[in-house]
Amino acid sequence: MFSFALAATSGGARAGLLTTPHGVVETPAFMPVGTAGAVKAVTVRDLGEAGAQILLANTYHLMLRPGDTLVAELGGLHGFTGWKGPFLTDSGGYQVFSLADLRQLSEEGVTFQSHLDGSRHLLTPERSLEVQRNLGADIVLALDECPAYPAPKEAVAEASARTTRWARRSQAAFGAATGGPSPAQWLFGIVQGGVHLDLREKSARELVELDFSGYAVGGLAVGEPKKDMWTVLEQLDPLLPRDRLRYLMGVGTPEDLLEAVGRGVDLFDCVLPTRNARNGQLFTRQGRLSIRNARYRRDPLPPDPACPCYTCRTTSRAYLRHLHLAGEITAATLMTVHNLTHYLDTLRHMRQSILLGRFEEFRGEMQRTLAAAGAEEESSEPSPSL
Amino acid sequence: MFSFALAATSGGARAGLLTTPHGVVETPAFMPVGTAGAVKAVTVRDLGEAGAQILLANTYHLMLRPGDTLVAELGGLHGFTGWKGPFLTDSGGYQVFSLADLRQLSEEGVTFQSHLDGSRHLLTPERSLEVQRNLGADIVLALDECPAYPAPKEAVAEASARTTRWARRSQAAFGAATGGPSPAQWLFGIVQGGVHLDLREKSARELVELDFSGYAVGGLAVGEPKKDMWTVLEQLDPLLPRDRLRYLMGVGTPEDLLEAVGRGVDLFDCVLPTRNARNGQLFTRQGRLSIRNARYRRDPLPPDPACPCYTCRTTSRAYLRHLHLAGEITAATLMTVHNLTHYLDTLRHMRQSILLGRFEEFRGEMQRTLAAAGAEEESSEPSPSL
Repeated sequence: MFSFALAATSGGARAGLLTTPHGVVETPAFMPVGTAGAVKAVTVRDLGEAGAQILLANTYHLMLRPGDTLVAELGGLHGFTGWKGPFLTDSGGYQVFSLADLRQLSEEGVTFQSHLDGSRHLLTPERSLEVQRNLGADIVLALDECPAYPAPKEAVAEASARTTRWARRSQAAFGAATGGPSPAQWLFGIVQGGVHLDLREKSARELVELDFSGYAVGGLAVGEPKKDMWTVLEQLDPLLPRDRLRYLMGVGTPEDLLEAVGRGVDLFDCVLPTRNARNGQLFTRQGRLSIRNARYRRDPLPPDPACPCYTCRTTSRAYLRHLHLAGEITAATLMTVHNLTHYLDTLRHMRQSILLGRFEEFRGEMQRTLAAAGAEEESSEPSPSL
Repeated sequence: MFSFALAATSGGARAGLLTTPHGVVETPAFMPVGTAGAVKAVTVRDLGEAGAQILLANTYHLMLRPGDTLVAELGGLHGFTGWKGPFLTDSGGYQVFSLADLRQLSEEGVTFQSHLDGSRHLLTPERSLEVQRNLGADIVLALDECPAYPAPKEAVAEASARTTRWARRSQAAFGAATGGPSPAQWLFGIVQGGVHLDLREKSARELVELDFSGYAVGGLAVGEPKKDMWTVLEQLDPLLPRDRLRYLMGVGTPEDLLEAVGRGVDLFDCVLPTRNARNGQLFTRQGRLSIRNARYRRDPLPPDPACPCYTCRTTSRAYLRHLHLAGEITAATLMTVHNLTHYLDTLRHMRQSILLGRFEEFRGEMQRTLAAAGAEEESSEPSPSL
């Protein structure tokens, strides 16, 4: 039921096809983030129309609310949310380290208090996979330890080594439960090692030795300089097996995706398009547009005249600006629909250029267009609370 | 371009057809409320799919933000919002009396401070129509004075008399601007008089004498006992011309609509279906359902198994409950889609029963179903801030 096949490469960029029990994903692909079982401000239909082929949901959030056994009872994420395509769930590690209170880390796992109600939980590699099995995602991730950035190199090394030990336990637990010749899920390992190339290499070699179905790259986009991220990806490219999917976690802007695809990344997730939509920032072919800016007060143009989305077909910047300033929920929906469509379209165009062997031309053109549009707009006004 | 024709009556209930330059409305009809130029939490497409044929927008809100001249510049409400069907705008009177600060009432009009930024404005009958002309609604209302409830009878009488004088000024201003043989808008007068039948009769007679294109009934659903509302409608029924549309402002629950249709009302608006959706209350054929109730925690049924809406076709109560408790915007959208569909469907069924001469049977059946479902659920938990 599962497979990943490369269809073409162009320079360092790869176009592939991921097949899952819930459908096919053309890569490189972007996963909208459905933290709590819904991508914020849009419906499943909106996601399909925007061109989404796979969604991410957060293990940490769903295990706390509504609880993974409840989701299982209601048919897993597919039955619960109504999204019939593939899901990927993260391991919960990143959220435990960034959101939870009173974390206590041991070799066994992480004990933490829920940020929602203070209840105590223990997340272990085995428990993470049990939760992800209950959620029923197509692709699941082995629990990792995410060190903060910056951290002393020894701390990063220790986290990285623990991530490998947890990856081994994850594989044992996964094999016992749902692995085997016709698995219901695919398990990915997460490469850690921060910005230290020797640690990254060590982590990658150890995980590849364990032979995962795919490899996530964690611990990037946590505050390090962009060039460090590119260097790490370049370092990992020859270390990871060509025939396995590579997933860069939590990245990034459309420009970041362009750089990462050029360095061999197949899969992305990020809250930027959805979160920024709620804050009034639109991504367009000409760069970012802060809808609160007074210049859009009487602007009859859609967010991006070249965009095929519902929002661009039916609304103006002036209308969106008004709705956003008035705190209307509809503004969040309309702008999220646009931003997701823009991300998914951008990746589709990248893929097309790879299939045509013209990724470098595409990259050059996209960079020139964004550069010509000038510096990105940033609004300094506070956001209405959406 | 404008007409209203009765198609059938059944008991006191009327089925008609309102024709406007932006399309036809089958009556009795319910207008979703698009206060600031959007019906909260849904898109124009959602409204069309829910079966809406006409929307209401608020003169008070739009004159303050984004401003009526800006809306005019962008093509009026139709161009600005993308809703291509008819619009009705209210006069602004009710909001000035309920929302604005520091009101000063004179024969000329009402001076008030914006609840948004404290700016000072003067709303007169003439100014209200100017704003509504800029907004470009199909149906516009003459400025009225809405007394609080309860108020001394003399105060109600005075407000009612002033409403008539303002109605006369409105007609003069309207005739000069857009009236005439082929008007771009239809002007309705508003009957006041509180719960006092003699004042209601006086108000109705004076307004009918002025020969408006339609008649709104204001000053009800402001806290008076329900039975007083029905008595007023019964009193007004023979006083209002049969061939003119009757619009009951700001009412109400599905049961209220049933009662009012049975007393000859053609048109309704109310924030209940949209506001209650955001607070987690769903209207169904079996009565109201508070989605926060723990009994829905694992309920795989849609909000209303007989409802054809997107939400009922694709989601469960358990999923909506989870999204609502998690404060997800998507919950507001999904529940608004359902509540509006339920309202619009209910009125469509009422209309069908009138056309078949069976309104009394329909009323009996709807009342029996609701009674069998037992007391309405009410949740006492506070709402997440949506």
